[in-house]
Amino acid sequence: MSELPIRDELRGVEPYGAPQLDVPVCLNVNENPFPPSEQLVADAARAVAHAVRDLNRYPDREATTLRERLAAYLERESGVTLETGEVWAANGSNEVMLQILQAFGGPGRTALSFAPTYSMYPEYARDTSTTWVTAQREDDFSIDPDAALKAIAEHQPTVVFVASPNNPTGTAVPLDLVSTLHEAGDGIVVVDEAYAEFRRDGVPSALSLLATHPRLIVTRTMSKAFAFAGARLGYAAASRQIVDVLRVVRLPYHLSAVTQAVAVVALEHAAELQARVAQLRDERDALAAWLREQGLEAAESDANFVLFGRFADRHAVWQGLLDHGVLIRETGPDGWLRVSVGTPEETTAFKVALTDVLKEQS
Amino acid sequence: MSELPIRDELRGVEPYGAPQLDVPVCLNVNENPFPPSEQLVADAARAVAHAVRDLNRYPDREATTLRERLAAYLERESGVTLETGEVWAANGSNEVMLQILQAFGGPGRTALSFAPTYSMYPEYARDTSTTWVTAQREDDFSIDPDAALKAIAEHQPTVVFVASPNNPTGTAVPLDLVSTLHEAGDGIVVVDEAYAEFRRDGVPSALSLLATHPRLIVTRTMSKAFAFAGARLGYAAASRQIVDVLRVVRLPYHLSAVTQAVAVVALEHAAELQARVAQLRDERDALAAWLREQGLEAAESDANFVLFGRFADRHAVWQGLLDHGVLIRETGPDGWLRVSVGTPEETTAFKVALTDVLKEQS
Repeated sequence: MSELPIRDELRGVEPYGAPQLDVPVCLNVNENPFPPSEQLVADAARAVAHAVRDLNRYPDREATTLRERLAAYLERESGVTLETGEVWAANGSNEVMLQILQAFGGPGRTALSFAPTYSMYPEYARDTSTTWVTAQREDDFSIDPDAALKAIAEHQPTVVFVASPNNPTGTAVPLDLVSTLHEAGDGIVVVDEAYAEFRRDGVPSALSLLATHPRLIVTRTMSKAFAFAGARLGYAAASRQIVDVLRVVRLPYHLSAVTQAVAVVALEHAAELQARVAQLRDERDALAAWLREQGLEAAESDANFVLFGRFADRHAVWQGLLDHGVLIRETGPDGWLRVSVGTPEETTAFKVALTDVLKEQS
Repeated sequence: MSELPIRDELRGVEPYGAPQLDVPVCLNVNENPFPPSEQLVADAARAVAHAVRDLNRYPDREATTLRERLAAYLERESGVTLETGEVWAANGSNEVMLQILQAFGGPGRTALSFAPTYSMYPEYARDTSTTWVTAQREDDFSIDPDAALKAIAEHQPTVVFVASPNNPTGTAVPLDLVSTLHEAGDGIVVVDEAYAEFRRDGVPSALSLLATHPRLIVTRTMSKAFAFAGARLGYAAASRQIVDVLRVVRLPYHLSAVTQAVAVVALEHAAELQARVAQLRDERDALAAWLREQGLEAAESDANFVLFGRFADRHAVWQGLLDHGVLIRETGPDGWLRVSVGTPEETTAFKVALTDVLKEQS
């Protein structure tokens, strides 16, 4: 059999990634533990039945209704007014990221982020032949402005990614850091706010900077706060000019009529979903406090997960929890583990398991 | 406002593309004119309600059930047995094409096709920084094997695209040409069979070559024969090794749980949909015959559209039809127009309008 002409950088690479194991308690991929209400299910079924009647036709290529509703949601959530043309949507925020790199990254260009951060960014860079570089975060996972400026001056990135809250650390960045990054170069600054709705009181969203920062893109997702990971709906807010460039590189008809319909329904149920977000924020704070009471470190988190440690052998702790039926994620800097915030029952199961594991291993 | 760091090849480019006009008779984007049955609508609504209950969880990343059902469908349709691991699925065959170029094209590599052909191929090449070249088809839109061999020798493409039936000409390629292309180089050969189900009796599918052609990929879509353009489901059959490479470059969780669910439902209704395909094939043959009776040329078509001409001023004919409420597509080589096969009523409206327009313009 002849050799396939696979690109060198893909040879021997395994596909992403997170184990999908059949375990009683899954706290490994930062899913929202609360399924949609029966009312949302019924409304979605009705909307999809309506959409299916026209499925022989291509969908609205511009997803206009959905983008209108996303703009309205962002205004309610953050107080920032956006026009439909300043909002973009795609199949998961990972497709938004890919489009951003297709438009503003690519061969001969560099994307920069601050490690430890989301493990998929370098894959998006690889898939668009963009050079990927990172600067290091501080010990508390914050970003030092001087180090950031130095990295921008050195690498001249056309795209800078800042996850805020950051995954896997949960760290939000102050808005003046976003301004600093924006002013330091001529590149696009992407603030990835996938977990924004979980931020603590007083922590701002970068949406408020859009009007004054023309190269800023703020990305969001319905996977987390909207408990809609299975629906694959990511979105972004940016200038109309940036959105128009993303419209050039997006695949025609990239968002199915069914995806558009179910996302619109979920947005109509935002209030119901936000009540659960409030509950998860309280759970998160209580979980971090409990971890510290056990003598562990827990990173400050504005997301729906907590990074905790440090363990001399984190894999042994991860495996011990799995043996107790609790799947968390072995990710982030060495010595740390990440646990998603689940239902109260799931959190209890995690606490019981961790207590046992630490006892067994001490 | 500072200049955005847009890639040079995207500056000033308008987004794709086909006008979405509100016109009584739309025969411009090769949609299937028959909407899904009420039974399919009801089954899809039920399946989606089920899927929505778990939408807080990420979808099956490997879309295993859907790929199993696609393999079973291809076996029924073409008699070729495939394993689940030899079938791949994505959001439209355009996403499949993008993934193929991410894996096997990219910077420093060339993709080749035979013009006139599908207008989106060069955009997929641009979006993956792949060099795009074409060789010319013959006057009857067939591909001359010697010209193809010469082009492969000259450009050394790592990916060769052959649409069969070709868009916008309707031309199917003989299987020995596919073999010739496969043997001529070390590249991937993609046979884009988006319209395969509409081929005339005796015209084979390249699926039958998969077992003996390890660098062959056959792509299909549910947009046309399955009347599912709005659902965005494209798929491919290839060796397990090729599928595994596509799994590396695909975005994690690229196919939503809802898309997977509705596509599975449509596959369960394949028999109902195939009856309509038979009807459209008859309509297509009758339409081509009618066009020739009017003294026009009509390209031999194995698809659900007919390329016809030639007109000294094709734009005037296109505009004249639009003024009569019939939208077709001004595409393909100069002098030709493309009309999709619609319902009998739509075809009648097209014939009446064209007769009037030709009379008005003579």
